Amino acid sequence: MDFLDEPFPDVGTYEDFHTIDWLREKSRDTDRHRKITSKSKESLWELIKSLLDAWSGWVVMLLIGLLSGTLAGVIDLAVDWMTDLKEGVCLSAFWYSHEQCCWTSNETTFDDRDKCPQWQKWAELMTGHAEGAGAYVLNYFLYILWALLFSFLAVSLVRVFAPYACGSGIPEIKTILSGFIIRGYLGKWTLLIKTVTLVLAVSSGLSLGKEGPLVHVACCCGNLFCSLFSKYSKNEGKRREVLSAAAAAGVSVAFGAPIGGVLFSLEEVSYYFPLKTLWRSFFAALVAAFTLRSINPFGNSRLVLFYVEYHTPWYMAELVPFILLGVFGGLWGTLFIRANIAWCRRRKTTQLGKYPVMEVIAVTGITALLAYPNPYTRRSTSELISELFNDCGALESSQLCDYINNPNMSRPVDDIPDRPAGPGVYNALWQLALALVFKIVITIFTFGMKIPSGLFIPSMAVGAIAGRIVGIAVEQMAYHHHDWIIFKSWCRPGADCVTPGLYAMVGALRPLTETRCDGVPSGGVTRMTVSLVVIMFELTGGLEYIVPLMAAAVTSKWVADAFGKEGIYESHIQLNGYPYLDVRDEFTHRTLATDVMRPRRNDPPLALLTQDATTVEDVETLIKDTDYNGFPVVVSRESERLIGFVQRRDLTLAIKNARQKQDGVVSSSVVYFTEDAPQLPASNPQPLKLRRVLNLSPFTVTDHTPMETVVDIFRKLGLRQCLVTRSGRLLGIITKKDVLRHMAQMMNQDPESIMFN
Amino acid sequence: MDFLDEPFPDVGTYEDFHTIDWLREKSRDTDRHRKITSKSKESLWELIKSLLDAWSGWVVMLLIGLLSGTLAGVIDLAVDWMTDLKEGVCLSAFWYSHEQCCWTSNETTFDDRDKCPQWQKWAELMTGHAEGAGAYVLNYFLYILWALLFSFLAVSLVRVFAPYACGSGIPEIKTILSGFIIRGYLGKWTLLIKTVTLVLAVSSGLSLGKEGPLVHVACCCGNLFCSLFSKYSKNEGKRREVLSAAAAAGVSVAFGAPIGGVLFSLEEVSYYFPLKTLWRSFFAALVAAFTLRSINPFGNSRLVLFYVEYHTPWYMAELVPFILLGVFGGLWGTLFIRANIAWCRRRKTTQLGKYPVMEVIAVTGITALLAYPNPYTRRSTSELISELFNDCGALESSQLCDYINNPNMSRPVDDIPDRPAGPGVYNALWQLALALVFKIVITIFTFGMKIPSGLFIPSMAVGAIAGRIVGIAVEQMAYHHHDWIIFKSWCRPGADCVTPGLYAMVGALRPLTETRCDGVPSGGVTRMTVSLVVIMFELTGGLEYIVPLMAAAVTSKWVADAFGKEGIYESHIQLNGYPYLDVRDEFTHRTLATDVMRPRRNDPPLALLTQDATTVEDVETLIKDTDYNGFPVVVSRESERLIGFVQRRDLTLAIKNARQKQDGVVSSSVVYFTEDAPQLPASNPQPLKLRRVLNLSPFTVTDHTPMETVVDIFRKLGLRQCLVTRSGRLLGIITKKDVLRHMAQMMNQDPESIMFN
Repeated sequence: MDFLDEPFPDVGTYEDFHTIDWLREKSRDTDRHRKITSKSKESLWELIKSLLDAWSGWVVMLLIGLLSGTLAGVIDLAVDWMTDLKEGVCLSAFWYSHEQCCWTSNETTFDDRDKCPQWQKWAELMTGHAEGAGAYVLNYFLYILWALLFSFLAVSLVRVFAPYACGSGIPEIKTILSGFIIRGYLGKWTLLIKTVTLVLAVSSGLSLGKEGPLVHVACCCGNLFCSLFSKYSKNEGKRREVLSAAAAAGVSVAFGAPIGGVLFSLEEVSYYFPLKTLWRSFFAALVAAFTLRSINPFGNSRLVLFYVEYHTPWYMAELVPFILLGVFGGLWGTLFIRANIAWCRRRKTTQLGKYPVMEVIAVTGITALLAYPNPYTRRSTSELISELFNDCGALESSQLCDYINNPNMSRPVDDIPDRPAGPGVYNALWQLALALVFKIVITIFTFGMKIPSGLFIPSMAVGAIAGRIVGIAVEQMAYHHHDWIIFKSWCRPGADCVTPGLYAMVGALRPLTETRCDGVPSGGVTRMTVSLVVIMFELTGGLEYIVPLMAAAVTSKWVADAFGKEGIYESHIQLNGYPYLDVRDEFTHRTLATDVMRPRRNDPPLALLTQDATTVEDVETLIKDTDYNGFPVVVSRESERLIGFVQRRDLTLAIKNARQKQDGVVSSSVVYFTEDAPQLPASNPQPLKLRRVLNLSPFTVTDHTPMETVVDIFRKLGLRQCLVTRSGRLLGIITKKDVLRHMAQMMNQDPESIMFN
Repeated sequence: MDFLDEPFPDVGTYEDFHTIDWLREKSRDTDRHRKITSKSKESLWELIKSLLDAWSGWVVMLLIGLLSGTLAGVIDLAVDWMTDLKEGVCLSAFWYSHEQCCWTSNETTFDDRDKCPQWQKWAELMTGHAEGAGAYVLNYFLYILWALLFSFLAVSLVRVFAPYACGSGIPEIKTILSGFIIRGYLGKWTLLIKTVTLVLAVSSGLSLGKEGPLVHVACCCGNLFCSLFSKYSKNEGKRREVLSAAAAAGVSVAFGAPIGGVLFSLEEVSYYFPLKTLWRSFFAALVAAFTLRSINPFGNSRLVLFYVEYHTPWYMAELVPFILLGVFGGLWGTLFIRANIAWCRRRKTTQLGKYPVMEVIAVTGITALLAYPNPYTRRSTSELISELFNDCGALESSQLCDYINNPNMSRPVDDIPDRPAGPGVYNALWQLALALVFKIVITIFTFGMKIPSGLFIPSMAVGAIAGRIVGIAVEQMAYHHHDWIIFKSWCRPGADCVTPGLYAMVGALRPLTETRCDGVPSGGVTRMTVSLVVIMFELTGGLEYIVPLMAAAVTSKWVADAFGKEGIYESHIQLNGYPYLDVRDEFTHRTLATDVMRPRRNDPPLALLTQDATTVEDVETLIKDTDYNGFPVVVSRESERLIGFVQRRDLTLAIKNARQKQDGVVSSSVVYFTEDAPQLPASNPQPLKLRRVLNLSPFTVTDHTPMETVVDIFRKLGLRQCLVTRSGRLLGIITKKDVLRHMAQMMNQDPESIMFN
């Protein structure tokens, strides 16, 4: 009797920090599917079950879309409210943000909005004095206090409940989706804590964004709903299909770009999927986007983060400043990456790493202290960005639009930009310059702390500030020097020629292309991914401004590349050394499989089993002595003809099981991997047949196969290991880890940086 | 000495109608690349050459974008002009289309445009009488004459110069991109002739569209520019990278949807590509789109085919008619496919096929004869569609907008749709109904004739007509029965509730999802691809109407599926039996490699070579007797240990070469595939060493490998053949053809329908 006919618990599952075997997962799912389809013919109930099973995928997508959309909306609202809470409170309803509070009052432009009576700053509320030094100091003090409170809560929650909730999470998600197991990284607790602490961290005024973490949150949702259906919870491969769709939903709500989200999940995080999942991802992304829009946190029924609409086109000559912006972007990108990585190293290595809470508190304190006095750093970063994007319209009354009107013009048409800048603008320029420096410095120290932190919004802000400054400069130059040859052609007096807001946008969208922060794709002609361009499309709406954007993006990337190719995100992944096999980098070295396989020249011979000549004891010792994930099985040590591969874990479980359940199985009984064990005399101990756990179709390549092909195979088929043969003889084995090591070596990196297997 | 050290001409090329080996192509390219990089260190000139090589990809993309964009623009303009030429001519400049001719005159609305003096109908021009029966008949007659002339030219050009130019071309392109060689299909002649005949065919008024053929044209451009760079012209794999980008550019200009184009090429036509090509495709698509826009054939500076903007939202209750539209779509789709395929079969089998010219002439004659009297079929299909999409605005004076104005309303605000329909509308309804029937019938006979023909526009037109009819019906119902429970909630008197144009759009965009005509992806939840949804996005601009569109699309697909899963395009591919391995259909059968491999049970043994025991003569006889594309090489017939695989073509070439160049090589000399031939006594003839042409890393699977996995491998790695082994012994071989045959069998189709290998 073969007791293995009924499968025993968790055969074919994986341990923590292990790589999954995609092919195996896939065929397991196909078996499952076959069973269900065959059963479904039996009874109506089975039929219904099979239908439910077929639809479960869509149900999961729907749920993911709904939940992640809702969470995103809630987070946005909460952040708005708490950010304003640092400055004051709404009397009519304390749960209103400043803007909501003042919706009632008809004045909603920037300087008048403070006039709305419902909204009171803390000082005014406590002392009754709205103005004066005292009030200012009190507000200042309370602002810092709130900030500290929020960030303290955030960091301690993370530390106590969910250490995995910190950072942006994209690198880990990429690794998980590539077929790696990190238990609890997408767990319920992480979801809950990350959502809460994200709100706290953002509203504490720290220089960080919420885009990256939102993707992590969405993935947690995905994982959560997987557990509802055994189809997904029991199959790591299928689970990852859902997760990549969830990532799409995350990007969709983070940037308000559903298509971009799908492409992102396709290019960046998806690893080994049939294209059909694309459509599911799209569905999830759409649902999420709709949910977010129906919650409508931005007050306008628009999805996109920053909606911009300019009335003036751009001119060829403007490409020069745009490209300059690109150069600046490249420089600051490189600076940032270098500094940030150096700082993270220091944190890892020195005492500093031991006091994350103190660190967060300190940084928050400094941030708040320096941010408050400057109106452009005081308000939330996204508010800042949208003001910088703004085209100075008729009703626009922000400091940035304080232009001197030509006397011969009537008031309402003051949106013609051909005007000299007023004192307000120059004042704003100074403040912006300060804000720029401040942001650059503080972000370096902020990113990588033990709180949820995205890098997208901050680097966008830096770009936007720089852009606006340049924009105003060009504008004024154009105004004062209409006669200059470069302006003559397109910028006649009174003509509508330069839009500073456009410069801000060009500057701001560059980070998308330049750092890999938040896993937003790295730029550069060679590595720039379509998803980011699509996100740009969706953010800016249409082809109109794609050329300037691209120009800036490409230059910035080239500049950045000149100083070193590493994106922030790659550097961080290296810092953690995840076994991530990037689908996009090309392997073009001349090495062969034989150079990579183990055992090497002077290693001990390959640990293998024979199909009918090993005893249970031998197997057990082999398992004890080695830590390999599996062992090839050969006909005999002489012929070395390969017949299959058996997973360590399955082997262990099988033997344990047999020893318990199957009487007569002792240490000396022989293990058979053959079709049927020979009839032994009764004296011999009962043989143990393990063909059931033997993988009869192990993947093999010849020793002459170029590594290039091997890498290709590992990527495309998502293998865990691959056996090397020469003319039918088993020579060695190549595991994913070996491949990664080898690639690292070829790129002159420390091969030991890949820690896990 | 081994003469093979210098490679001999066209080793590693393919014959016509053969499948390429992707892995091989790839490694060949890598070698090339390595050579160049190593050389580039030698001299400055080499460095420059290497840089040029690195950039050639981008140059090709640029060129493709420019050319295909220009061609698309030119085609659009030419079609406009020639379509109008059938009715009349512009006196001021005969090369103006009707619209261009009347741009000068300030009246450009539909009924007034005929008033512009510059434009004269033929009758008026010849006889001087614009009105009257005589003039009408004359115009009618000339209309038909022109149509016949155009179509005759088209069909004869195709027949004489480029037989490959007919049809939409997408199926062939998919097959070519999947790694199949069809010489001349993308040749210069095809490009030229297809462009010209496409214009002729469309403007002859036949019921066909230009979208599909445009993709073919773009691919021809791609192929054209490949020949400029040996990097692409000499490597079939690299060439296909370019072609898939070209396809993206094609879709981008055909639908004015760059992103959609990229996704389309990714999902539909791309087969085995690194994601990095995605970005190149995007670049090509963008350039093409820009070029097209700067040519600006549609007169508005927009890219999209039909720009629509409605002021009213849609209401939940409207989903009912939308879904009804979907049902109609599904039904007509099925009907169309069945009828069209039946007709094509008849054409293939009966005498009919022998007279393609006559057929075209006849169909054109009938089309023109029936089309002219009805204003909605007389004008070009795209004009018709855009009128149907139109929302009845204040200045809109087409027959469709002839509503009776409430007396108590002033003229200008007549765009409030809550009005009773006037006689014009009812009249239009009749004409539309007739047009609907006419289009449905004629399209069945048109698609598949020996001229360039796309199916997208016609099926869109059918949908749009049906949609508009339903829309008006609902609108009037809503007007006359405000009190009905369904209308009460959302359609109060005077309220702006139903937009007939939206119905037309919903109806029109459904074909995108329902047939696979023009290779526009098939719909249905399981098969619906993201690219089509993105195209929808880009055509309609934004999320606003995606829900109704989806509702209609999904229903229509379900209805269609209920009547048989086959899309028109799949049916046509089957009709021709291309060896196309669809990436998207799942293979879930339980068969193993051993069931598929050859030799079968009672076949002759596998034709193979031994590494050191075959003479040149044996090899030559083997080549003569068999028609296999290659032969496995084993150590010895006894051990059957596989050492490599040699391509038939390479073998032939090598021996031919050796016999010519290498003296001492005679029929009796032994062929060696070993590292080094043993030292033979002088008496023996000189041995022939062919290790150079031996592929030392053939792909092997075990006989127990599930076919599911094998199919996966063939798809993902783009294999041409794969060897089957058991415990190191060579058992048999599986070619792509075998896989396709097997899959066909499993789907209960005739395995012999796959003709080529």
